[in-house]
Amino acid sequence: MDYQKHFFEIYATLESIENTGEVAQYIPELSRIDASKFGVSLTTIEGKTFSFKDANEKFSIQSIVKVLSLILAYKELGKELWKRVGVEPSGSPFNSLVQLEYEKGIPRNPFINAGAIVIADVLVSILKKPKEDFLKFIQNIARDNSITYSKKIALSEKQSAHRNMALVYLMKSFKNIKNDINEVMDFYFSICSIEMTCEQLNKSFLFLANNGSCPIQQKEIIRISQSKRINAIMQTCGFYDESGDFAFRVGLPGKSGVGGGIVAVHPGKYCVSIWSPKLNKKGNSFLGTKFLEDFTTRVESSIF
Amino acid sequence: MDYQKHFFEIYATLESIENTGEVAQYIPELSRIDASKFGVSLTTIEGKTFSFKDANEKFSIQSIVKVLSLILAYKELGKELWKRVGVEPSGSPFNSLVQLEYEKGIPRNPFINAGAIVIADVLVSILKKPKEDFLKFIQNIARDNSITYSKKIALSEKQSAHRNMALVYLMKSFKNIKNDINEVMDFYFSICSIEMTCEQLNKSFLFLANNGSCPIQQKEIIRISQSKRINAIMQTCGFYDESGDFAFRVGLPGKSGVGGGIVAVHPGKYCVSIWSPKLNKKGNSFLGTKFLEDFTTRVESSIF
Amino acid sequence: MDYQKHFFEIYATLESIENTGEVAQYIPELSRIDASKFGVSLTTIEGKTFSFKDANEKFSIQSIVKVLSLILAYKELGKELWKRVGVEPSGSPFNSLVQLEYEKGIPRNPFINAGAIVIADVLVSILKKPKEDFLKFIQNIARDNSITYSKKIALSEKQSAHRNMALVYLMKSFKNIKNDINEVMDFYFSICSIEMTCEQLNKSFLFLANNGSCPIQQKEIIRISQSKRINAIMQTCGFYDESGDFAFRVGLPGKSGVGGGIVAVHPGKYCVSIWSPKLNKKGNSFLGTKFLEDFTTRVESSIF
Amino acid sequence: MDYQKHFFEIYATLESIENTGEVAQYIPELSRIDASKFGVSLTTIEGKTFSFKDANEKFSIQSIVKVLSLILAYKELGKELWKRVGVEPSGSPFNSLVQLEYEKGIPRNPFINAGAIVIADVLVSILKKPKEDFLKFIQNIARDNSITYSKKIALSEKQSAHRNMALVYLMKSFKNIKNDINEVMDFYFSICSIEMTCEQLNKSFLFLANNGSCPIQQKEIIRISQSKRINAIMQTCGFYDESGDFAFRVGLPGKSGVGGGIVAVHPGKYCVSIWSPKLNKKGNSFLGTKFLEDFTTRVESSIF
Repeated sequence: MDYQKHFFEIYATLESIENTGEVAQYIPELSRIDASKFGVSLTTIEGKTFSFKDANEKFSIQSIVKVLSLILAYKELGKELWKRVGVEPSGSPFNSLVQLEYEKGIPRNPFINAGAIVIADVLVSILKKPKEDFLKFIQNIARDNSITYSKKIALSEKQSAHRNMALVYLMKSFKNIKNDINEVMDFYFSICSIEMTCEQLNKSFLFLANNGSCPIQQKEIIRISQSKRINAIMQTCGFYDESGDFAFRVGLPGKSGVGGGIVAVHPGKYCVSIWSPKLNKKGNSFLGTKFLEDFTTRVESSIF
Repeated sequence: MDYQKHFFEIYATLESIENTGEVAQYIPELSRIDASKFGVSLTTIEGKTFSFKDANEKFSIQSIVKVLSLILAYKELGKELWKRVGVEPSGSPFNSLVQLEYEKGIPRNPFINAGAIVIADVLVSILKKPKEDFLKFIQNIARDNSITYSKKIALSEKQSAHRNMALVYLMKSFKNIKNDINEVMDFYFSICSIEMTCEQLNKSFLFLANNGSCPIQQKEIIRISQSKRINAIMQTCGFYDESGDFAFRVGLPGKSGVGGGIVAVHPGKYCVSIWSPKLNKKGNSFLGTKFLEDFTTRVESSIF
Repeated sequence: MDYQKHFFEIYATLESIENTGEVAQYIPELSRIDASKFGVSLTTIEGKTFSFKDANEKFSIQSIVKVLSLILAYKELGKELWKRVGVEPSGSPFNSLVQLEYEKGIPRNPFINAGAIVIADVLVSILKKPKEDFLKFIQNIARDNSITYSKKIALSEKQSAHRNMALVYLMKSFKNIKNDINEVMDFYFSICSIEMTCEQLNKSFLFLANNGSCPIQQKEIIRISQSKRINAIMQTCGFYDESGDFAFRVGLPGKSGVGGGIVAVHPGKYCVSIWSPKLNKKGNSFLGTKFLEDFTTRVESSIF
Repeated sequence: MDYQKHFFEIYATLESIENTGEVAQYIPELSRIDASKFGVSLTTIEGKTFSFKDANEKFSIQSIVKVLSLILAYKELGKELWKRVGVEPSGSPFNSLVQLEYEKGIPRNPFINAGAIVIADVLVSILKKPKEDFLKFIQNIARDNSITYSKKIALSEKQSAHRNMALVYLMKSFKNIKNDINEVMDFYFSICSIEMTCEQLNKSFLFLANNGSCPIQQKEIIRISQSKRINAIMQTCGFYDESGDFAFRVGLPGKSGVGGGIVAVHPGKYCVSIWSPKLNKKGNSFLGTKFLEDFTTRVESSIF
């Protein structure tokens, strides 16, 4: 299928509608981004890639990394992991403390901030050199050693992290954080600062479209059943308080980040990554979400 | 694929584990059911059916009907419907009033009780003879005029409906119920009382595995995009507070009822219905859920 | 002390400030009231009465009656009553269902709507002819047979009672309502419709300023310890979500109603009633609250 | 009145009932206390003191200090203070984050932990040498330079303060904490570590029974209206989630601490302090609460 032609046509349509989104303001480094940037790239499991506009420009992947940290923790710990974090959608804004308090410090799922911090704590326990080891894990999957952390973003994030600090202390009070809080949060802020291009994102996530194995390297990253479960969690929890709406409109499992990136996976077919910095009120890329909705509608292809 | 052989083998495995579920107690009529009943049936979009044990015995489909009432309302009203009910998972027990109050009487999704009552209100507004017309709608889809209401169940339900009455009055106070409360609730209790066999359920839901068209009659019930959206809502909201877990373990969109029934759909492949009356703590069939988990694991086939 | 002089002077001061309150709109009968009405009356336990302006005009006492229904139920049932309703401030808007759900149908206190409905249910169980008997109880305390129900108000209230109906059904689902819902609510709406003048309110509440005994008739209405406890509940729960603020600013136990009335009691000294129909955002008389604050500040006399 | 005789007789009665309370376990230093300790002391505004048993033994006053820190902040800031903290009862457990999140970082009242931390932040802004200046303030009121901090308790508290850290970070995210978090919390933990005897507590609180002026030194500590307001806040918010119950049973404004201490004030009459380390489920002294209830019932004297 000529995906590039579709990208071109959908983009033309969307140029006419007003983008009412806002670039993330909560950390200075993110707020300075050029709001007009737009990139999309699709890679099939056969290895063909279709890119459009700024698909080779790096941006801050932010929460998208939470899928990769979850995968490494799940790979290592197996189903023991689910004692410390759930797999249910949260049904409330992405940083709410309310549910966490009612549920005794066990976060609803690994993609809300609290859950991703628990995953960070797990990795700090497991990995010898957490930051180096985690980066190597991603570089290996993506076959790309140029992927790296942004120290600037990590620092900026750290300085405006009061709410995340509240979350981690609350979980510590429920004994669901095992390591030193500063070490856990330093690791957490670092992994959220990773920068990638749309094409690199595809390379990092393609195995989820192929039952857990990289189709290029013919190498199993995680088992089939694990791959299906990661996709299921992305489907039900990948878009904060808008996960149901994304499933409804786009129909693919995926994950968004406040940098304006979205990765979505069509099992058995392809991985698609998109980047547009302005966010809707729920914190997901305004144009990215609309683009993917038009895309799956136009090609009449979703998992449903 | 010889699905019947799989059914036989999975059932043999599950017989050894203890069924810690409980038959629904909240209405007398349901509590009297024989807890050992078990039926499963799978129908492919090519029209082949594989049945096992009590697949031809009628049971109370209860909340499963909420998919069919949603479909009729959606078909008639189109996207106007989403002004009155959301598509997000609720993240709290299926009958909670809390979220409904915070969100000003707009239920999170059409499958929690509040949402299904709003859908009932919509149908009371639209249909000339709500009960007759709705039954005819289902009979037509399933090509089976023997499907009908159970007056006993409807009456029993009515008499223990205090919490549902609280829900409907709360929504009325927010002006999200337009008709007379008694008429709406009478219709709601009736449709929840419908009885079907596993095979009849398959016939009623097969079009959702086939992009909205009945593959037997070659007739469009709803449009492709609508069919995908209904499946998406089933995936994220079909199992009360356990929807994420069902997606995680089974990996198919579906809907359960407190009668112990579950319908699940594999788009492009089949519809499968299962019945076992004992429920787990979240209100979903204990054995039914486990059976479907083993089934999709064994045939290595889910939408993810 | 020349209370009348104080009334005159405080009223003069308050005329210059803007009354940003709003007359209660939720039932037509209340919304039609003349917003400029103002009455205040103080009766000492020695029997002296000081009245100002419209102190002899009848108005709808609304929730103020909840103190009198509580007293009758407490008198009859003793401390058994506290199994069905608490004595803690609610900390949330006066008609919230949230807390009621978390606390399994036991209302926080007898002055929020849910609590007053439970008290109504108790009285329906106890009294032979609930409406007649309750009215007689009040007429006897006040030595005034002209006090009576307003059928118009009761009817108007009934027709816009969706939220109260939600409350009573929710409590019924938790088995904290024993009688037929329609009978309970009919009684509840009737007692809320009682009309009194400021002077009649004083006569009905004076015994609470005198350790439970009417100083005029020298007759015990309730025991000393009970009288103190009723005053304590008024202090902590008498003004919906503004009870702490009323204690802070006025420093007297009291009870307000959405008709714009307030009764306050200075144990050992006097009872004071005030009426001004415009309500602040929390549902308490705007001018009434301010007037009482200025009054207790000026005479440097509160229970604290 | 011979208060000592009453103390003796009440104590004799209470010895026969089982004390089902538990000594506070959350910090090691408090858990080691001798649970059988019991002291009570009453000082009238005329200066007479009646003491019983361990009334001259020091214990950790914990949250009781929150009244004194509030007073100093109120004295300095006046009503500006109420922009940063409310005066409403919280209606939920004393350390809940839920309400704080819904109400945008403004604590309900100055006696829940969040509120007391805001007060600590205010004092850190105002005082030159916060710890020294605050201690001097108390020593002056009590005319007793032996009152001091316990470094052991403060340190112990600091090490198990995860939930308080969550609170302060949450408020910082809402910009309701102005100073460095570590400095604020260091001050907060210090003031909570103050140790006093029952008699010293009376000396520190007697002015609240005397319209804000110390009757011994004839010196105004705070103005009359301020004194009444502090008492009002103690009445509605002084006993965590049990404030309504304490008003109901005891009928005096007061404040408790997890060290097992309670101070209560009868305006115009006396101040009474009591100490018994075992706490009931709401975190208030089990025996202390019962003793005060029997006391005010027996002497038939409360503010109501």
